[in-house]
Amino acid sequence: MALKHISEKTIGRLSLYRRLLYRSSLAGQNNVYSHQIAALSGSTPAQVRRDLMAIGYSGSPNRGYKVGELIKSIGDFLDDPEGMRVGLVGVGNLGRAILSYFSGRRPKLAIVAAFDVDPNKTNRIIHGCRTYATSDFPKVAKEENICEGIITTPADTAQATAEMLVNAGIRGILNFAPVCLKVPPEVFTADIDMTMTLEKVAYFARK
Amino acid sequence: MALKHISEKTIGRLSLYRRLLYRSSLAGQNNVYSHQIAALSGSTPAQVRRDLMAIGYSGSPNRGYKVGELIKSIGDFLDDPEGMRVGLVGVGNLGRAILSYFSGRRPKLAIVAAFDVDPNKTNRIIHGCRTYATSDFPKVAKEENICEGIITTPADTAQATAEMLVNAGIRGILNFAPVCLKVPPEVFTADIDMTMTLEKVAYFARK
Repeated sequence: MALKHISEKTIGRLSLYRRLLYRSSLAGQNNVYSHQIAALSGSTPAQVRRDLMAIGYSGSPNRGYKVGELIKSIGDFLDDPEGMRVGLVGVGNLGRAILSYFSGRRPKLAIVAAFDVDPNKTNRIIHGCRTYATSDFPKVAKEENICEGIITTPADTAQATAEMLVNAGIRGILNFAPVCLKVPPEVFTADIDMTMTLEKVAYFARK
Repeated sequence: MALKHISEKTIGRLSLYRRLLYRSSLAGQNNVYSHQIAALSGSTPAQVRRDLMAIGYSGSPNRGYKVGELIKSIGDFLDDPEGMRVGLVGVGNLGRAILSYFSGRRPKLAIVAAFDVDPNKTNRIIHGCRTYATSDFPKVAKEENICEGIITTPADTAQATAEMLVNAGIRGILNFAPVCLKVPPEVFTADIDMTMTLEKVAYFARK
């Protein structure tokens, strides 16, 4: 199957569809139509059908999609069959929050190690995750087969952290620090800036 | 001053510039050039100058901008002079994480009350924030002068929560639940979907 050119937005939508389908499944729903997925996800039925065709799944116009099969198909496409192992750098307020949020959330996507420069925060278990010295990242990443990094360091050490991750072979970084990371083109990064988003909402709420 | 048509992206960049300038200021820097702000923020010097002119601030081509003045100008533009008071609904794992992260972070932007349907989570102080029953939101929002809402409920109650916020007069919502909220056009919403973003990074890290 040729699965080229799947865009970032498509991947994002597939991830969202899957979570919506989990809910439908828990609620006892067995079949679902593209227009239902569209309504829940803020998409259009045509877009939903295109996205699902892109991963090689097609439903029947009359009976829709089978919820369980669809969840599995999206998972086969999105998830690494081996599971994706993530390392988090920066065990401050935000880092702990992220550890707590993702702890045990996804069997195929787990934060398996956390790192900090502060010796008081290392060699501990925080929200079920073992913590190490940041300087041990390359060694631990290899031992633990870590492929993705989360940066929750202060802004002024985020770039150096990103470079260390890249040198250790990491090819995907989720960055929470309010800086624009410079990484080689083969490394995929995404940014979440919670303070900026909250300030933006505050601004437009006043207008 | 005509300040129409300031886009979401401009507001986001101004918020980011301000945080970068705080850091420069703490590091003892008094003057800054547009190209320095651009390099730190992943923007271009021309874009930085346009954004700052949009809020009525212009530096000198030779001496750049005064860091302290610029921080103040951006603040005068972005911040509500009275301070923006935020209410958070959903004191689960994620809600607590958000409370902990924003606790005492911004004097002009504070989460002043949190809400949950679970009686075990109400009438408490969590990360410095008092918690109430969700059904008390309209009353507390009025008493506490809450203008912005954060939704950290489970997905299946997020839409009903949004409607309650809107009926209570809230005009800005930061939504962490993985659903597409339907709100009237005068209400501004922004979404942060951490799981989707982490899954997206995982997908592209494998390719």
